[in-house]
Amino acid sequence: MFKKILVANRGEIAMRIIRGCRELNIATAAIYSEADSTGIYVKKADEAYLVGPGPVKGFLDKQQIVDLALRIGADAIHPGYGFLSENAEFAELCQESGITFIGPSPSAINAMGSKIKARDLAKKIGIPVVPGTEGGVTDMKEALAFAKDAGYPVMIKASSGGGGRGLRVVRTDAELRDNMEVASREALAAFGDGAVFIEKYVERPHHIEFQILADKHGNTIHLGERDCSIQRRHQKLIEIAPSLILTPQLRAEMGAAAIQIAQAVSYDNAGTVEFLLDQDGRYYFMEMNPRIQVEHTVTEQITAIDIVRNQISIAAGKPLAIRQSDVTLQGHSIQCRINAEDPRNNFLPCTGTITAYLSPGGIGVRIDGAVYKDYTIPPYYDALLAKLTVRGRTWEETVSRMRRSLEEYVLRGVKTTIPFMKAIMQEEDFRAGRFDTSYLDTHPDLYNYDDEEQPGDLVLAISAAIAAYEGL
Amino acid sequence: MFKKILVANRGEIAMRIIRGCRELNIATAAIYSEADSTGIYVKKADEAYLVGPGPVKGFLDKQQIVDLALRIGADAIHPGYGFLSENAEFAELCQESGITFIGPSPSAINAMGSKIKARDLAKKIGIPVVPGTEGGVTDMKEALAFAKDAGYPVMIKASSGGGGRGLRVVRTDAELRDNMEVASREALAAFGDGAVFIEKYVERPHHIEFQILADKHGNTIHLGERDCSIQRRHQKLIEIAPSLILTPQLRAEMGAAAIQIAQAVSYDNAGTVEFLLDQDGRYYFMEMNPRIQVEHTVTEQITAIDIVRNQISIAAGKPLAIRQSDVTLQGHSIQCRINAEDPRNNFLPCTGTITAYLSPGGIGVRIDGAVYKDYTIPPYYDALLAKLTVRGRTWEETVSRMRRSLEEYVLRGVKTTIPFMKAIMQEEDFRAGRFDTSYLDTHPDLYNYDDEEQPGDLVLAISAAIAAYEGL
Repeated sequence: MFKKILVANRGEIAMRIIRGCRELNIATAAIYSEADSTGIYVKKADEAYLVGPGPVKGFLDKQQIVDLALRIGADAIHPGYGFLSENAEFAELCQESGITFIGPSPSAINAMGSKIKARDLAKKIGIPVVPGTEGGVTDMKEALAFAKDAGYPVMIKASSGGGGRGLRVVRTDAELRDNMEVASREALAAFGDGAVFIEKYVERPHHIEFQILADKHGNTIHLGERDCSIQRRHQKLIEIAPSLILTPQLRAEMGAAAIQIAQAVSYDNAGTVEFLLDQDGRYYFMEMNPRIQVEHTVTEQITAIDIVRNQISIAAGKPLAIRQSDVTLQGHSIQCRINAEDPRNNFLPCTGTITAYLSPGGIGVRIDGAVYKDYTIPPYYDALLAKLTVRGRTWEETVSRMRRSLEEYVLRGVKTTIPFMKAIMQEEDFRAGRFDTSYLDTHPDLYNYDDEEQPGDLVLAISAAIAAYEGL
Repeated sequence: MFKKILVANRGEIAMRIIRGCRELNIATAAIYSEADSTGIYVKKADEAYLVGPGPVKGFLDKQQIVDLALRIGADAIHPGYGFLSENAEFAELCQESGITFIGPSPSAINAMGSKIKARDLAKKIGIPVVPGTEGGVTDMKEALAFAKDAGYPVMIKASSGGGGRGLRVVRTDAELRDNMEVASREALAAFGDGAVFIEKYVERPHHIEFQILADKHGNTIHLGERDCSIQRRHQKLIEIAPSLILTPQLRAEMGAAAIQIAQAVSYDNAGTVEFLLDQDGRYYFMEMNPRIQVEHTVTEQITAIDIVRNQISIAAGKPLAIRQSDVTLQGHSIQCRINAEDPRNNFLPCTGTITAYLSPGGIGVRIDGAVYKDYTIPPYYDALLAKLTVRGRTWEETVSRMRRSLEEYVLRGVKTTIPFMKAIMQEEDFRAGRFDTSYLDTHPDLYNYDDEEQPGDLVLAISAAIAAYEGL
């Protein structure tokens, strides 16, 4: 087993990794920037080293990090998510330097690094992908033939475009004809290339992803799925496990497909295979993320399997201690991302100093936080302050537990997603389990939430509460 | 379902009940004394009322509490543990006043209120109890005959004594002869009654207790057992679930015995049947506690069953939603009681103001706390500040998680059991699962633990840690 792991990340995921290492009696070394020197993970690690320059570069400087690991005698590096976690060159540099990269091999990262390559791979091994034209189309006949084959609605995309530019959804031959001409003209004007892609448009899909664990000895299992449909601008806000709409048969089928994809690239370590699931129960492979994900906690809560510990022991060459038949899903879990953001202002990131902090507790509540009272949130990193994950026996119990936990959460001094999350937990469709990726767009009333009450000081708040009731 | 529940308790168990009510959308009313007006449960309840006079009397004043409930429109009272929780008269007063007492019927409380009555009941229905003479013994022949029958060692107790006075363990006929005479003389001198009880002495037993849930419709189930062997002066410090030594067969047998006892007194609501388990796997009924117990959390962690929610729905007359076959035990759980006590000073209760507070988090960690930074611990109540409960897949994982969580716990300004608990988590016998009720007495080295490090201020501590490593 490793003696010392360098944690090449910050915030809550650094805390998560440090916790896993501590339980395994492995020493930890954190890296930090001057801007984040009061981060709690810096204190909780056994050692901490300043990297730089500036707030971000040090977390992305492959050579600096590897050199540090060599200097301090770290025999492994855990990259977390973001930063260098999906960087095949970094994984390779670690390998060349005799340091274990806790993640898949450089070749597996590469194989999954391009969505197009990953999609081609899936097609080759017979996993469904969203049907689309193989290349750019200029011929109307070809376009109509594809649409007939795939079925309406279809989506027209400028082949050289990006970021949703020139994206059109059409539902009939006539609409396709009209829009293809316009799209082609626009694409030509914008990118100098009039070719367009046509893809089957999956309406109001669910985002379903399978958690994979694979060791270096050919054992690959899945830990069930997560439903991450509640997103804004393609960023996940709330994740649940298991999905409320998968049948056991579909779970087995999609799980087998996820394993097949991982095995096709000789994947080892933890990874996530993402699918779209349409309203008729058809699934389509999207991509595989070769790293730990923010939302891994919901899987841990219902399987009682520690994914980070497994990452470490897999990287150390140990065979998986769990077989597929050992994996059982108990109850339900929900994670809410507590971000320093203003939901009403298009989720604009906020900074500030936390003036009061008391996290919720009690049955079924898990907190993965990286903040504390008096911590000042630096403006350079992502807005995630803490992850609130709850577990319950039934969906109803789990939702009510999340609502109760959000109500209990005292986090003052900065705007957060907490009041918005509270509104979601009380919304009828969510409570009934009726949501897909269109949920936030179709429920604009959610933004009329009540702001968090003041004052932030607990002692003051308690005195106020007592004063209010004393007269009764 | 109830509209408003009066929580007739304080501290962490008041928080526990409030959490359960909130999840069920039931309003809560707390009661508090002037001495504990800054208790966090006071703030977290929907309403809070001062009771008195003094710090304790208000929590014990049956009429005052029932009158308050009537005045504020509470339709049920949850007594928690301690205070009025095992008071049949209080349960009866509630009943007469048209308020639901969340607990068993007065007659069931009465039936279990006397250890002797409960023991007789168990014997009558064929549940083993520790063999003892039926009444006081003065005749040596009778004493020797009993010892021969029960087997040595036996224990001689002054029949009118208490608190361990005049308690003698003997292992041979000769020892019995010698000691019985002395004990009898002492008993005569001390209590004016020379009769002694002789009881089989169970050496180094395990304290095993079964959690019962019973509804008002005749359904009684058990949620498996807890091992609460780690005690000092008969007060539990650490509890685990499941037991590490019970076989599935023994679990089924003892569980059935526990259900039988509950059914014999038409028990409803949550309760706990306590047994001694000797080194040869023989079990003896001790008593039944007709209330929620401090250590119920470990059962909740491995069964995913919310005991407090079940208490409430049972009291409201609902049938149990869970059958015995639905109860599965997943993994392991440990609870450590974080008390404001000085273990090295015979666990003397400590008071003071909490100068820094950050509870541990991450995978498998549950906190049931009632404290916060700047809270001053009143000297009038029990020393329990928080319960730290962890869950893991294996025993080894669970112990390492508890160790990690204790290391993470920041609670400064007052002495606590945290450093002592840390020492236990690193002790070889505990880690190997080798412990019984003699554990603390046979491991005196545990008291040579390191005190918690200072400073308490997190920002200061982080700065210090960074300064220490910056030069490297």
